[in-house]
Amino acid sequence: MKSQNQASGVFSPVLTPFDSDLNPDIDRLIEHCKWLLSYDVGLALFGTNSEANSLSVAERRLMLEKVVETGMPAKRMLPGTSTCNLPETVELTKHAVDLGVLGTLMLPPFYYKGVSDDGLFDYFSRVIEGVGSKSLRIYLYHIPQVTEVPISLSLIERLIKSYPQVIKGIKDSGGDWENTRSMIDEFSEEGFDVYAGSEPFLLQVMQAGGAGCVSATANVNPGAISKLYREWNYSDAGKQQSNLNRVRRAFSEFPMIPAMKAAVSRLREDSDWLNVRPPLVRMGAGEREMLFEKLDSIGFEMESQETA
Amino acid sequence: MKSQNQASGVFSPVLTPFDSDLNPDIDRLIEHCKWLLSYDVGLALFGTNSEANSLSVAERRLMLEKVVETGMPAKRMLPGTSTCNLPETVELTKHAVDLGVLGTLMLPPFYYKGVSDDGLFDYFSRVIEGVGSKSLRIYLYHIPQVTEVPISLSLIERLIKSYPQVIKGIKDSGGDWENTRSMIDEFSEEGFDVYAGSEPFLLQVMQAGGAGCVSATANVNPGAISKLYREWNYSDAGKQQSNLNRVRRAFSEFPMIPAMKAAVSRLREDSDWLNVRPPLVRMGAGEREMLFEKLDSIGFEMESQETA
Repeated sequence: MKSQNQASGVFSPVLTPFDSDLNPDIDRLIEHCKWLLSYDVGLALFGTNSEANSLSVAERRLMLEKVVETGMPAKRMLPGTSTCNLPETVELTKHAVDLGVLGTLMLPPFYYKGVSDDGLFDYFSRVIEGVGSKSLRIYLYHIPQVTEVPISLSLIERLIKSYPQVIKGIKDSGGDWENTRSMIDEFSEEGFDVYAGSEPFLLQVMQAGGAGCVSATANVNPGAISKLYREWNYSDAGKQQSNLNRVRRAFSEFPMIPAMKAAVSRLREDSDWLNVRPPLVRMGAGEREMLFEKLDSIGFEMESQETA
Repeated sequence: MKSQNQASGVFSPVLTPFDSDLNPDIDRLIEHCKWLLSYDVGLALFGTNSEANSLSVAERRLMLEKVVETGMPAKRMLPGTSTCNLPETVELTKHAVDLGVLGTLMLPPFYYKGVSDDGLFDYFSRVIEGVGSKSLRIYLYHIPQVTEVPISLSLIERLIKSYPQVIKGIKDSGGDWENTRSMIDEFSEEGFDVYAGSEPFLLQVMQAGGAGCVSATANVNPGAISKLYREWNYSDAGKQQSNLNRVRRAFSEFPMIPAMKAAVSRLREDSDWLNVRPPLVRMGAGEREMLFEKLDSIGFEMESQETA
């Protein structure tokens, strides 16, 4: 069953705004974080959709410091702190823990392929020992279609058994509902929070006893996703889920990150929000028009979302 | 046709030795580099088989500085300087160029999948502009089975056209001979060096007008690979190639990096050479015995290789 804890809810891998030189834009980032929190959406900074893997270690440290300095609650932050290598992953994780975050979201090391569970267990163990903090809370991040390095059920079991105070949950972005359900069935009673990797699975996850979702589209549709999280056992939950899915599908027809940035750019009337770092490419005017027509046709309005 | 230049030859992605705390072991690294150079094998430090993507930026900088400081010729060095992100790739590349290396071997940014040639072109352009040095020489690194981000012929063409003084070659580890041959046919006349990504393609590459190979197994079989490079138009070249292939196949039956380290460990009678960083796992005693039996059965002797 769903455990009642601070971590439950809806999180967003916060989009990273870049200025015209493609440097991270701290002011726009803070504004966007505040907007997300106003919908009770937590801040999973430095996720895949944050272009975290296009940021340097120094940039990630600075951005997190600046966001925490504003006074926004660190306990609503679940930053990604993984890289391909141990020293930098330990550094980023320690840094985030020292800033008081709720936990850190952690990819497996993702360059080498065909690696064993033994190797991954050793990796995570060394991160945990290297950070060496009682405040460390790790949420694993399973996204095999990008990393090609899956986090298996047996690896999760082994990690929970060895580090029960540290291994607190997972974001399952694999898109395989049976796998998500197995994670919930096998581990959620031990206080392990299973998050859907996108909101199309939110209702199913909540019904099965999961913890919520960490979803890219919470960057653009935070109010409605948050509402379903609160109201998942209401009679209209299925209808709410269908509405969320329609919005998600509209964005999914385009490259997701540039499309979400285009939507934020329209909301804020701010063309700098279009910027992405290569290898991604920002949306051109024609593509934006197609996206906006699509969003308009399904009645999606970013600016008039219901708050909690 | 094959261009005569400094870069031609055999390079090895130099294995990275780790001490018992899994820190890079500089002394062992230097010893191994000298041994490779004694066979006229150039130093492609920080390749895939160097576990480069398990090293931090700071470690890569320090290791390269220490190797250059020994007086080994920087013009025989082709270090990998890529990461997933622009700022650190620019930093590592600039650092290597300032140390006087022959060139840098460069992966595409490898986290995000399904990226476009436009995005990759923009990425490499920004690296080149960011480094901003007339001494910069980039050798692209195509290894789609690991990165899932191929470097297409049209991307190469576009890069050569825009940066003819910078884009000097490619390591093709894709394993598709037709692709390698197309690269040679289309670009080698412009002084673009095409390296086989492993020595089983060495003879074919030389016959077609390529530049040589950058191969993992040059860490363990440098003398024989170097000899075929020098003697590729001798009458016994086919037989030499078969012998190389037999050794390569023996190592390929095991996880390649731990197996090569086990072979070096046996040669040097030094168990610390077995160490790898997770997610890789070092070879156990039983597996090593199997490897050594296999190597003995094909008459492979690391210690008595022919030097140039």
